[in-house]
Amino acid sequence: MESVSFTQEIKLSPVGVVKNQVKNPVLFSHREGLEMQGELEAFWRTVREVNQMASEIIIHPASSELLNGIEDFSHLLVLYWAHKTTSAGRSLKQVHPMGRKDLPIKGVFATCSPARPNPLLLTVVKLLERYGNVLKVTGLDAINQSPVLDIKPYVKESYPHDEVLTPAWMQELIEEAKTMAGQ
Amino acid sequence: MESVSFTQEIKLSPVGVVKNQVKNPVLFSHREGLEMQGELEAFWRTVREVNQMASEIIIHPASSELLNGIEDFSHLLVLYWAHKTTSAGRSLKQVHPMGRKDLPIKGVFATCSPARPNPLLLTVVKLLERYGNVLKVTGLDAINQSPVLDIKPYVKESYPHDEVLTPAWMQELIEEAKTMAGQ
Repeated sequence: MESVSFTQEIKLSPVGVVKNQVKNPVLFSHREGLEMQGELEAFWRTVREVNQMASEIIIHPASSELLNGIEDFSHLLVLYWAHKTTSAGRSLKQVHPMGRKDLPIKGVFATCSPARPNPLLLTVVKLLERYGNVLKVTGLDAINQSPVLDIKPYVKESYPHDEVLTPAWMQELIEEAKTMAGQ
Repeated sequence: MESVSFTQEIKLSPVGVVKNQVKNPVLFSHREGLEMQGELEAFWRTVREVNQMASEIIIHPASSELLNGIEDFSHLLVLYWAHKTTSAGRSLKQVHPMGRKDLPIKGVFATCSPARPNPLLLTVVKLLERYGNVLKVTGLDAINQSPVLDIKPYVKESYPHDEVLTPAWMQELIEEAKTMAGQ
């Protein structure tokens, strides 16, 4: 009975595009799993730089009305498409988080892997400015030319902080990100 | 130069489907905007019921490996497709939030409207249980048979609570949700 939904094809058109200085994702995917771009220290340096850098999100000029009132929010949630993910990456079922063999292999849905069946990624960004059909933001971890699929106001009340539990391997990564990338 | 990305078509296949008791969304969309299902009090009662109710997310049995390790997270982020959104709803540029004329008209990207160019909705849910290819969760605001596009572990560190600002009309809605739906 659910089989109908599984085979359904959903078609999206980008509502905008990312413009920034980042040419390649920090994590690649191939048939065997994820692979970090460069050594661990260089990886975190890139993550830190990407987080501090400003990006522009260009909305189709004919649709700039969609943004009216968005300038009253300090943070936005940006949904974008990881367009460099290969079909091998989309077929992965389990990965070592961040391609690190020192971390236990986990189902893709238990990780933040950019390579997933539908590589829909999301980031909470800080809105610096809106001019017409352009948003200037920081904290967007997308690369240049990433298709943007949706933009939502960020409402912190929808994102609980109390009683949220994560496993030890994820805690380890969170601590590492704090130390190495100031996140 | 960005024009290539705007015309690109992105194809997704659902990774799972929602099973619950909710037949219709609480907000409808048509050419003129959003419309609430029933009166305000009934609307909030439905929201409250939906938030407390358990839903199942059925992943394709051949892909249940994708969920390995997910049971170690207390909360998940579920990305689903608002499959009842009409093409008229997807063309809306500005709406009164929740279809309420007492709230100022805003660009769709400044609202949580389910009717948007790409009706990709997301909710942070509480994970009660995983058995095989099935997740049992609470807090999912999707309706029965909604196609699920992605599931991510919820990591609160990625969702800031400090220095987040929202405009007065949104604050009003947040307060109303607290009072009327215990959110």
